[in-house]
Amino acid sequence: MAAVTDLYPTRGTHEAAVPRRDPVVWPSGSGAPAPGPVDADALAGYERDGFLTVDQLITPDEVAALRAELDRLIADPAVRADERAVVEPHSQDVRSVFEVHRISEVFAELVRDPRVVGRARQILGSDVYVHQSRVNVKPGFGAAGFYWHSDFETWHAEDGLPRMRTVSVSIALTENLPTNGSLMIMPGSHRTFLGCAGVTPRDNYKRSLRMQEAGTPSDTALAELAGRHGIRLFTGPAGSATWFDCNCMHGSGDNITPFARSNVFIVFNSVDNAAEEPFAAPARRPSFIGARDVTPVR
Amino acid sequence: MAAVTDLYPTRGTHEAAVPRRDPVVWPSGSGAPAPGPVDADALAGYERDGFLTVDQLITPDEVAALRAELDRLIADPAVRADERAVVEPHSQDVRSVFEVHRISEVFAELVRDPRVVGRARQILGSDVYVHQSRVNVKPGFGAAGFYWHSDFETWHAEDGLPRMRTVSVSIALTENLPTNGSLMIMPGSHRTFLGCAGVTPRDNYKRSLRMQEAGTPSDTALAELAGRHGIRLFTGPAGSATWFDCNCMHGSGDNITPFARSNVFIVFNSVDNAAEEPFAAPARRPSFIGARDVTPVR
Repeated sequence: MAAVTDLYPTRGTHEAAVPRRDPVVWPSGSGAPAPGPVDADALAGYERDGFLTVDQLITPDEVAALRAELDRLIADPAVRADERAVVEPHSQDVRSVFEVHRISEVFAELVRDPRVVGRARQILGSDVYVHQSRVNVKPGFGAAGFYWHSDFETWHAEDGLPRMRTVSVSIALTENLPTNGSLMIMPGSHRTFLGCAGVTPRDNYKRSLRMQEAGTPSDTALAELAGRHGIRLFTGPAGSATWFDCNCMHGSGDNITPFARSNVFIVFNSVDNAAEEPFAAPARRPSFIGARDVTPVR
Repeated sequence: MAAVTDLYPTRGTHEAAVPRRDPVVWPSGSGAPAPGPVDADALAGYERDGFLTVDQLITPDEVAALRAELDRLIADPAVRADERAVVEPHSQDVRSVFEVHRISEVFAELVRDPRVVGRARQILGSDVYVHQSRVNVKPGFGAAGFYWHSDFETWHAEDGLPRMRTVSVSIALTENLPTNGSLMIMPGSHRTFLGCAGVTPRDNYKRSLRMQEAGTPSDTALAELAGRHGIRLFTGPAGSATWFDCNCMHGSGDNITPFARSNVFIVFNSVDNAAEEPFAAPARRPSFIGARDVTPVR
């Protein structure tokens, strides 16, 4: 095995921005564009902005079935006791369930759906596997958001993904409003990798699922990026979806409204970009957060 | 002096909603509508919804002058040391300055401006004085918001305002975006008084300027109000303004963007509704938070 080159250094003594060294939309092995359900304009928009939205990725009936399954999962004592469930300390409510496509056949079927995995294959130009999946329930009444971060920064530092060949989809199971802590992305920020300052503590993931610490950009870097790219807020009905590149600078505010925000979040990685050892962390994260099984989704 | 009747009981053992017992737009002493700059349609909207917006209450040049004055105030060591300044513990930045119309002649002039005080007189049907004024700087990068509350609930419980004859104006000194923690109001919520459960601790104001505690509605009450009325988010350029009734259920989310949100907040009370003793608190708040000098604005 050849020595691994770190194309995207991070968690050192200084914050440093470097240009992206990977395609955003990957060609297939033959060099031709990969086939799939995304039309050329939408794909060009994804390459330029780092995201694409789909107004109705799944139907209202499918949303209803997924919400029923989500309700079943968060009420299930076995799920609550599972290490893959994130439980809010104060209320004891389940806030997230990781690896939901292995816990629930209903969510496994969603992952295999051609509308879902087909778009991931098209963008990444290869077969894909699930690096991470989860359902999130942001219950309102003051639920905290997630501070600005690039997912790739974490997945590179803590999981060992070598290249930017990973795409996420967030599928809304409730309406995403301007007021209930919806996703914000800085369009075009995916073209710059921001290496963050600071060393990763052991078991960082236990804290960082709730609050960003290591891997957090400085105020100066965020002001510069937001000044250059602006900030786009994503709203839409249940069933709508946002696909976004692994290196988008994104975050969300808190949700003081009574309107809960639930979504399914699936991260597809190319089978040609399997996780190696972490580039900037003392140990691998658990495989329910960063998968080690690269069996392609079929 | 006659015994004071408490029309709006609060801070008892139970939360209880009662209908508003006061007009929203008050007639003048003669019974005729009070004159002023607000047209009949906008006034009817205010009566119905509890708020009205003005796209350009003050000009860009006036905004620039007020922002320069705000910058001067928050950099002034005498202001920072003043008990009327609220300083963020972590950053040591000035977050709010109370009674700003007594600290700064520039802001005093704004209060006296016919575009400002004229609207307050028209809505309240009488001469008015300033119950509270402040400038707020919400600096971004994670600045906390304010949880849902009715201002009147606090002003009645802690300052002794007997009736709902008070109007606030929030004038934007920076752009209010959908993403930077802008004001949210439940339209029509001003027609219901929500008496809150829980006793007011002594010196509650020292905590409640940062975080709501006593006077906080329950999740059940908020879900009911938001379900009935919905939630309106207020955005607009610098110089725009939102006038809102003292009993609107309102709040704001946090601001993780780098875009600071600054505004001037002025509370006008009718001279016929002067503060009495607090209805549900052990002692008066300081007069820079709840004024005792009812000299009309001229």
